[in-house]
Amino acid sequence: MRFVMSACKAFKQIAREEALKLDGFRHACHAMLYAPCGEKLFGTYPIRHAVMLQMRFDGMIGFPGGLVDEGEDLEMGLNREISEELSSKAEDIQLTADHYLMSHYSTEQHLCIHFYTKCIGYDLFVQLERNATSAADHGLEVLGVIRCPLYVWRRELGLPAFLLNNFVGNARHQLLYALEHEHILSSREIKSALTLSEQLKVKKERGEV
Amino acid sequence: MRFVMSACKAFKQIAREEALKLDGFRHACHAMLYAPCGEKLFGTYPIRHAVMLQMRFDGMIGFPGGLVDEGEDLEMGLNREISEELSSKAEDIQLTADHYLMSHYSTEQHLCIHFYTKCIGYDLFVQLERNATSAADHGLEVLGVIRCPLYVWRRELGLPAFLLNNFVGNARHQLLYALEHEHILSSREIKSALTLSEQLKVKKERGEV
Repeated sequence: MRFVMSACKAFKQIAREEALKLDGFRHACHAMLYAPCGEKLFGTYPIRHAVMLQMRFDGMIGFPGGLVDEGEDLEMGLNREISEELSSKAEDIQLTADHYLMSHYSTEQHLCIHFYTKCIGYDLFVQLERNATSAADHGLEVLGVIRCPLYVWRRELGLPAFLLNNFVGNARHQLLYALEHEHILSSREIKSALTLSEQLKVKKERGEV
Repeated sequence: MRFVMSACKAFKQIAREEALKLDGFRHACHAMLYAPCGEKLFGTYPIRHAVMLQMRFDGMIGFPGGLVDEGEDLEMGLNREISEELSSKAEDIQLTADHYLMSHYSTEQHLCIHFYTKCIGYDLFVQLERNATSAADHGLEVLGVIRCPLYVWRRELGLPAFLLNNFVGNARHQLLYALEHEHILSSREIKSALTLSEQLKVKKERGEV
C-alpha cells in the first residue's frame, strides 16, 4: 500500500498464523466479492466493477461475513456466514485460503478479523444481490446489500462521498486496501478520492452541502 | 416536531403551492415506504417497522424518488421514478397527493424537494426489495435498497450509528420527521437516538471505536 491510510486505530495488522495463536480472541471473516461490469452511469461514467458491501444491523457499512463459530475453521465460518447472508449455494462462491488477503486484531474487543477477496462473474453477482432478499439474515442481521461507487462525479460525489458513510471496525481500510490490491483502482485514484472525501467532510460540517 | 432538529441548512421548508410558483426551480419527489414487521433481531430487539431507503449513485443515502420531468405533475414524476428504481407495477404502490407530507427548497441548488410517506404490507415491502435488483436503475442510479434500523443496541448501535451515515440533501431530516409523524418512533426516542449519535461521532473522531 503506497498511500498513507487513515486506518481504524483500534485494529492492528497481524499474520494469519500469529492471529490463530492468540488466546481468548474471537475470530471473524469477511469477504469483498466483486465483478467486472461494462455499464456506464448516465451513459458516461464507467462503473468498471460492481463491489459488494452491506448495510448491517448495527447501522454501519461492512462486508458480507461474520463470526466464526466454535469448531469451525476460518473458511468454514466465512462460507456459512455468506450463505446465511446471500442465500447462495455453497458451490457458487466457495471461498478458500487462496482468497485470503490479510488479518487484523483489536485488543480492546478481543477480536481478530480476517479478510478475503474474490472476483466473480457479473451475472452471479446480480444473482447474489437478488438472493440476498430471501436470505435467512435479510431484514435482521443484514439491512441491504449495496455496491460501492468507484467513479468520481461532480467533484466529490461517488467514491469520495461514499467514504464518508459510517463503516464498521476497519471495513473502510479493508475496502481501500483491497481496491488497490485487486487492481480495481490505482493508488493515485484512491489517494485522490480520500483527499476529495476530506474536502467534502469539511463542507458538510460547515453546512454548505 | 417537538425536538430541535439539526436540519440541513441549505434547505428551507415551504408550502407545496408556494413551491410550485417558484421560477426556474427543478422539482424532485421522494417517498418513505414502510411496513409493520413483527420480527425480532437476535430474537430480542423488535424490528417494529421496515423503513426503506437506498444507497444512491452519488455514494449517499436517500429515499426512492427523483427529479420530476418537464410535463409531469409531482405525483406522476414520483411514481415514474419509483417504478424505475423498484421495478414495481404502478398499481402496487401508487402514491397520490394523500401521501404528501412536506416540501423544502434550496436557493443555491434551484431545487424544490417534495416528500411523501406510505405504509404498505410487509410482503409487498419484501417484494419491492427483491424487484429492485432487476429494476432499470439497479447498479446505476441505485446501488442498493436498505432498511433503517429503529432499535438501539449496545448503547449507540442501530439507529444512532445509522444516523452517522452520509445522507443526501435533507434526507436525514425527512427520515426523522417522518418517523415521528407516522408514529413509528416517539419524539423522545428520536431525541435520545440523536444524542447517542452525537456521542458516537465524538468517539469515532477520537478513534476509540
